[in-house]
Amino acid sequence: MEQLNDLIAKSKLVRKWCMVSTTEAGSGHPTSCLSSADLTTALFDRFFTYDIANPLNLYNDRFVLSKGHAAPLLYTLFGMAGAYRLEELKTLRKFGSRFEGHPTPKFIYAEAATGSLGQGLSVGAGLALASKREGYPNKVFVLIGDGELAEGQNWEAANFAAHEKLDNLIAILDINRLGQSQETMFGHHIEEYVNRFKAFDFEVIAIDGHNYEEIIAAFEKATQNSNGKPFAIVAKTMKGHGISFLENKDGWHGKALKKEELDKAIKELEPINDNLKFALKKPQQTKLPEKDPSVRNVDLGFDKNKEYATREVFGDALAKLGQHNKDIYALDGDVMNSTFTETFKKDHPERFVESYIAEQNMVCVGTGLSRLGKIPVAATFGAFLTRAYDQIRMARVSDANIKFVGSHVGVSIGEDVPSQMALEDIAMFGALPDTVVLQPSDATSTAKLLPHMINHKGFVYMRTLRPKTPLLYDQQQTFNIGGSKMLRFSSSDELTVVGTGITVFEALKAADDLKKENINIRVVDCYSINPIDADTLKNCLQETKKKILITVEDHFEHGGMGDFASAAISGMEGQVIKMAVTKISESGTKDELLKDAGISADKIVEKVKSLVRVIEPVA
Amino acid sequence: MEQLNDLIAKSKLVRKWCMVSTTEAGSGHPTSCLSSADLTTALFDRFFTYDIANPLNLYNDRFVLSKGHAAPLLYTLFGMAGAYRLEELKTLRKFGSRFEGHPTPKFIYAEAATGSLGQGLSVGAGLALASKREGYPNKVFVLIGDGELAEGQNWEAANFAAHEKLDNLIAILDINRLGQSQETMFGHHIEEYVNRFKAFDFEVIAIDGHNYEEIIAAFEKATQNSNGKPFAIVAKTMKGHGISFLENKDGWHGKALKKEELDKAIKELEPINDNLKFALKKPQQTKLPEKDPSVRNVDLGFDKNKEYATREVFGDALAKLGQHNKDIYALDGDVMNSTFTETFKKDHPERFVESYIAEQNMVCVGTGLSRLGKIPVAATFGAFLTRAYDQIRMARVSDANIKFVGSHVGVSIGEDVPSQMALEDIAMFGALPDTVVLQPSDATSTAKLLPHMINHKGFVYMRTLRPKTPLLYDQQQTFNIGGSKMLRFSSSDELTVVGTGITVFEALKAADDLKKENINIRVVDCYSINPIDADTLKNCLQETKKKILITVEDHFEHGGMGDFASAAISGMEGQVIKMAVTKISESGTKDELLKDAGISADKIVEKVKSLVRVIEPVA
Repeated sequence: MEQLNDLIAKSKLVRKWCMVSTTEAGSGHPTSCLSSADLTTALFDRFFTYDIANPLNLYNDRFVLSKGHAAPLLYTLFGMAGAYRLEELKTLRKFGSRFEGHPTPKFIYAEAATGSLGQGLSVGAGLALASKREGYPNKVFVLIGDGELAEGQNWEAANFAAHEKLDNLIAILDINRLGQSQETMFGHHIEEYVNRFKAFDFEVIAIDGHNYEEIIAAFEKATQNSNGKPFAIVAKTMKGHGISFLENKDGWHGKALKKEELDKAIKELEPINDNLKFALKKPQQTKLPEKDPSVRNVDLGFDKNKEYATREVFGDALAKLGQHNKDIYALDGDVMNSTFTETFKKDHPERFVESYIAEQNMVCVGTGLSRLGKIPVAATFGAFLTRAYDQIRMARVSDANIKFVGSHVGVSIGEDVPSQMALEDIAMFGALPDTVVLQPSDATSTAKLLPHMINHKGFVYMRTLRPKTPLLYDQQQTFNIGGSKMLRFSSSDELTVVGTGITVFEALKAADDLKKENINIRVVDCYSINPIDADTLKNCLQETKKKILITVEDHFEHGGMGDFASAAISGMEGQVIKMAVTKISESGTKDELLKDAGISADKIVEKVKSLVRVIEPVA
Repeated sequence: MEQLNDLIAKSKLVRKWCMVSTTEAGSGHPTSCLSSADLTTALFDRFFTYDIANPLNLYNDRFVLSKGHAAPLLYTLFGMAGAYRLEELKTLRKFGSRFEGHPTPKFIYAEAATGSLGQGLSVGAGLALASKREGYPNKVFVLIGDGELAEGQNWEAANFAAHEKLDNLIAILDINRLGQSQETMFGHHIEEYVNRFKAFDFEVIAIDGHNYEEIIAAFEKATQNSNGKPFAIVAKTMKGHGISFLENKDGWHGKALKKEELDKAIKELEPINDNLKFALKKPQQTKLPEKDPSVRNVDLGFDKNKEYATREVFGDALAKLGQHNKDIYALDGDVMNSTFTETFKKDHPERFVESYIAEQNMVCVGTGLSRLGKIPVAATFGAFLTRAYDQIRMARVSDANIKFVGSHVGVSIGEDVPSQMALEDIAMFGALPDTVVLQPSDATSTAKLLPHMINHKGFVYMRTLRPKTPLLYDQQQTFNIGGSKMLRFSSSDELTVVGTGITVFEALKAADDLKKENINIRVVDCYSINPIDADTLKNCLQETKKKILITVEDHFEHGGMGDFASAAISGMEGQVIKMAVTKISESGTKDELLKDAGISADKIVEKVKSLVRVIEPVA
């Protein structure tokens, strides 16, 4: 019992700083911290094994704060673990502070940026998966709020964790009854959570989250668990626990205490020993992630007379690169035979991750893998990456080093209709700062760009095509992020047509047709959409008669390559004319749909002629 | 037993056309149709109550094909229900046909476009919810594949359906074991599904999905169910059932039969009676959705001397409009006290839908409501709408009439960090064809734009602000989709600064500061981002000295208002210079973050001066 008194004393200091820091900030979620304070005090003081000097030590246990609004708790825990003085928490939410309103990578102990809810279990599953596969003995703890359990992604993660037998993953469910605007769906009926996690094949224990005997017994069971099942501790807690006027009260979500309320609360806690620290256990070994060497070009020996689908070339090239670089993981959403990550799976099953049809979980597992120095390549239909836009956005906030590949882009997929066509993916990825967007049009450029994608640190999105396309480039050609290729040019070009992916071929056909009528146009393959090759586009504008760039893309009109091109030439004389998809498409053949969308060769010919004629009427 | 023979005979005709149509198309998913053929034959012939002449009859049962790739089955079912001749199915997947590769609104019997998986149960829940609330006795059947049950959204929908006591909702789970690229996570272990749905408070029955006695008993139980629980029929089926060389075989997903394979398959089915029809029951009553009258302006009597948060004004105005128009439903994701849909809830609880923190389900419930003639207004933090981008995209393909409201946009929210800031939402909505994007900056424009939003048929997205802003406009002013307001102008303007939302105030401050230095600029409030007021922007370009538009927006640089402005002036002399957020933000005050992002008044002043000076060096 003396031991428990020790924990109670430490929890008072935890509670104090969750309240002091938020009052100092004038905003934040102190009551959401207080409900978890006892659970996490026990965890950090008795069970958590962590090398505070090396947050990336692969032997470290991991703590993922899924309920990101409880950030002050996270900051207090690591402060009491000795990472910094608690006084520094008074900078909470202040500009420039590492203690942001929700955890971000500025706080080096955060495993991922959280605050968009319901993502932590997936991140934890990614961390736990890598440890399992690579033989590290650590545990991954994920603190989850009850409000966020309404997010379906939790159940994607739960299925995944159970299927992968992640018995090193421990979900701590803080069931404090109160959401932001009202009671949660299940209030304090914790059996609803117990039943669900049991049905999802977790080992489950239900406890009072403020009773240290029960908490310690639960963590003991959870950390000794090795039966192949992930573990869930379902803890009934009280929001604001420990302070009489906050505990289990409505209307206190996301509110900092006023100074006088804080004083009153501190009085309730006193005496408080400000010198207490957690007795953090240090792992016996230290190993930091080592970066595998950069990958180089792969020669896949393409046959000039054959056609190739860039998606298939991507799969072949990735499998080859996986031999050079053991950090590469491939992530799939049950479409590996469409995206061709199945080729990688054949060669490197130990680094292939099947997420089934659960794209949100797939992306966050990638965030977890990235934290451990892996290079996750997450591939599905480009259209289905929209399913995970929030997770992609949060992975970007997390500074995750993930590579995304979206296949089956645009109307050129043919018969399978709009639900399967990626037509907003360039807008979606392009909006995120510092995100590279690539779209190779042939086999050579795909194989040549892939090493750049892997070696680039940060977000890269590659679009791949469903149909096969002829070879445009030989092995001598080089390709770079930010580059482009000029495929047709003469000294008397009227204007420039900029294509990307499938539309490069439409542009070439248009150029050839126009040439027969003595109209010369320049054709650029804009395989790097962001960054776009501004210098080349500017030169094209200056060197052509009409000072026009026609951008042609198999993507919706707003937010696509055309807008990147416009931005690139802003301030120059001349203009960008966007040809893109402007309506919901339908079933049909590739050629019917390209034409119907107004981005086929004949539509380009029409457009060019109208521009040439408008400015130079027939004599 | 004779009755069962009748069903078996009909199922043969169903199977025939699922295969004939896909073979004719040369692509499609016949085996995914065959696993559901017996379940749906029994449903349509014995239980489904439907007025084929009036698909929108509110007394109709509803059939939602969540597994959209089984579209040929859907088309065959309604053909055998007498909607058209089965021969027409030979146009499947052909350009112009109403029988698209996955269901779309061109097929008027489809309740929603499907094909991005795991969305049907939510759509069905929306349909069932409206029937429950408005007292219609119909049933809603949702056919769900096992592969798509990996999508977490299903569990959001399941929670929602149970919580709302939707015992008129019947989920039919076609557990055929095989996904696209491999066996599903649970294969034929149907107890995994039974346990999950039971834990989610469904009434559950497990059956052999090819045994008509069991199927009929299950539907009898399901349709008589009135215990407040939604119903799940977990059916163990075989992909390709009924054809020996397809049944339960790997490698047949998404493949049409070759002609000779089709002949062989048909032989196995023969004899087939091509004249069989379903004995569809007609509902006893007919009532079509009546459109409530257009809403008009609401006068909220703003006080000139006060400041208002546009999000709060939105809530007040919506509640008022809800009195005029009983079709309006408000949908929330547990942030009603932040988005202020709580005001609507107080006045119209019967048309308020709480989806808790489950944005995917929220949007698809909206799709279901829209199908019934309702006007769903789905509101959450703009950042969290990214969670439902796939559902939003599919709602757009469904031609749903949904209004989206995203609060807490941009860095101007202050301390709560990037996870809570909507900075890619204009790109996300703007990319979707024919989607109106609005961003009022003050109380008056918010209240005046809201009726336009409600009356506009189709997608509208409105951004609302967290902080309070002063009144810019009086009640006499009019606002329109596609409009803008010029707030500063003179006969000697150097250039134009175009703001939207919070940046309008930064632009005004900049203009006032610059005026003190005798630099006149024009300021436009671009409250309608898409469509943008091209005429005004063009005039501004022509009428100012430098022919420059500086767009300033609290949104990432790519895909925002600046790109709409660029597109609007394409071809004119002059240029757009975009000032927008170019990096991940952090915690801080509103003003610190606007400045840090480079979109504050002083940054505008700096930019304007640099442009004025560059072009006209100091004398």
